[in-house]
Amino acid sequence: MSLPSKVTAAVLLIGDELLSGRTRDVNLQNIALFLAPFGIQVAESRTVSDDQHAIVAALNALRERYDYVFTTGGIGPTHDDITADAVAAAFGVGISEREDALNILRQRIKEVDLNEARRRMARIPDGARLIANSMSGAPGIHIGNVFVLAGVPGIARAMLEDVGPHLKGGAVVLSHTVRGVGLREGAFGAALGELAAKMADVSFGSYPYFSAEGYGAHLVARGTDPAQMAKALEALVDLVKQQGVTPEIDPPNA
Amino acid sequence: MSLPSKVTAAVLLIGDELLSGRTRDVNLQNIALFLAPFGIQVAESRTVSDDQHAIVAALNALRERYDYVFTTGGIGPTHDDITADAVAAAFGVGISEREDALNILRQRIKEVDLNEARRRMARIPDGARLIANSMSGAPGIHIGNVFVLAGVPGIARAMLEDVGPHLKGGAVVLSHTVRGVGLREGAFGAALGELAAKMADVSFGSYPYFSAEGYGAHLVARGTDPAQMAKALEALVDLVKQQGVTPEIDPPNA
Repeated sequence: MSLPSKVTAAVLLIGDELLSGRTRDVNLQNIALFLAPFGIQVAESRTVSDDQHAIVAALNALRERYDYVFTTGGIGPTHDDITADAVAAAFGVGISEREDALNILRQRIKEVDLNEARRRMARIPDGARLIANSMSGAPGIHIGNVFVLAGVPGIARAMLEDVGPHLKGGAVVLSHTVRGVGLREGAFGAALGELAAKMADVSFGSYPYFSAEGYGAHLVARGTDPAQMAKALEALVDLVKQQGVTPEIDPPNA
Repeated sequence: MSLPSKVTAAVLLIGDELLSGRTRDVNLQNIALFLAPFGIQVAESRTVSDDQHAIVAALNALRERYDYVFTTGGIGPTHDDITADAVAAAFGVGISEREDALNILRQRIKEVDLNEARRRMARIPDGARLIANSMSGAPGIHIGNVFVLAGVPGIARAMLEDVGPHLKGGAVVLSHTVRGVGLREGAFGAALGELAAKMADVSFGSYPYFSAEGYGAHLVARGTDPAQMAKALEALVDLVKQQGVTPEIDPPNA
């Protein structure tokens, strides 16, 4: 049995606060790390403002191009939460308050408190599945190849638990990281380039750092074939040693 | 004298490590906060992998659509640093090693150490201006409405100092934040929506939080007219008080 080919995802982050610099996103990282063990690679991410036209255009571009799309943000009870409507518009379907979503809200909200704002969270595009939210109740939305998650990182993360069973993954990408204090990219760049050219099925990256304590680099190999990856790790260790630096090997997939 | 109309920017983050979840980006936030006082608003951001086709497509889409584009990542000395070549391809211009860029490298690198990998950092698209890098020397690239910055956050930030003088800004967006412990979005959502409808020139946002210490929300007003913004602040304070919660007012533009 051969593994399915590369399975890709895009992440669409929605919210003025991400573009103004008020908030530093962490959902992209959380989603990417969640998807990796399924063999699903995030291939692109976009961040757009709370603007229906912008959300619809980005969502339609991404859901066409990638196997899955994950959105975060804009499904709360306030006027700037317009993601559910934008998703319905992108899919060209209707949207209305749904009884099963209302009943979920009722488990945590008294009927007297179930005002118009809170009922917005039960507006679901036609044909969508609800995504369970074990943290705060109000559901996410699964429609077509799109998963609509909350913006609050803890809630988005909780919703992913009800996303996993609906994913069809591909070959899992393995990674090895070899670090070296004092490594200089300019010194090992040629050797790393030669290695990358020689092992075309493995993707090599170099990530330098500069801190008060000193400088160095992390060398990363990524690939799906375990045998090739073992060779890549060995080659990176050799490369670092050739620089006169002691290689420090992170746990796999760290 | 009237202020120029809205001036927009896009941020293009380049790097497999951002999409794999290995690295959590901070450059978008840094760039947005740097641009805000110039009256330049980040309107969209995209993250793409170290892939020339992906970089070219995103760059051409964004530089057409927004006043400025800022890229980060991919201008170092290793084989996966392909941004300079991708930028040249996007603009349809040539790229070659440039003497002024080499001379900048020579200020920090001995001639004997100026190997092929390091010389990659002197490859500059035709017609571009060099962006000074006070932190580590190797220059950024300014071509058309595009500013090509390093990926390492400290270096990207240092390069922005040589970007500011080349920007033409617009109306500066002011913001006010009013926080309230115990605020529930579902309870004030309707009132906030009415306020937003009444003050159409001000953009209102609501950002809930949930932590071990408790929950609450930050209410944010953003706009360019100081008189309107003063009214918006007053209205948010009233709204929070009406919820039986003590309003906490952040410093302006915090």
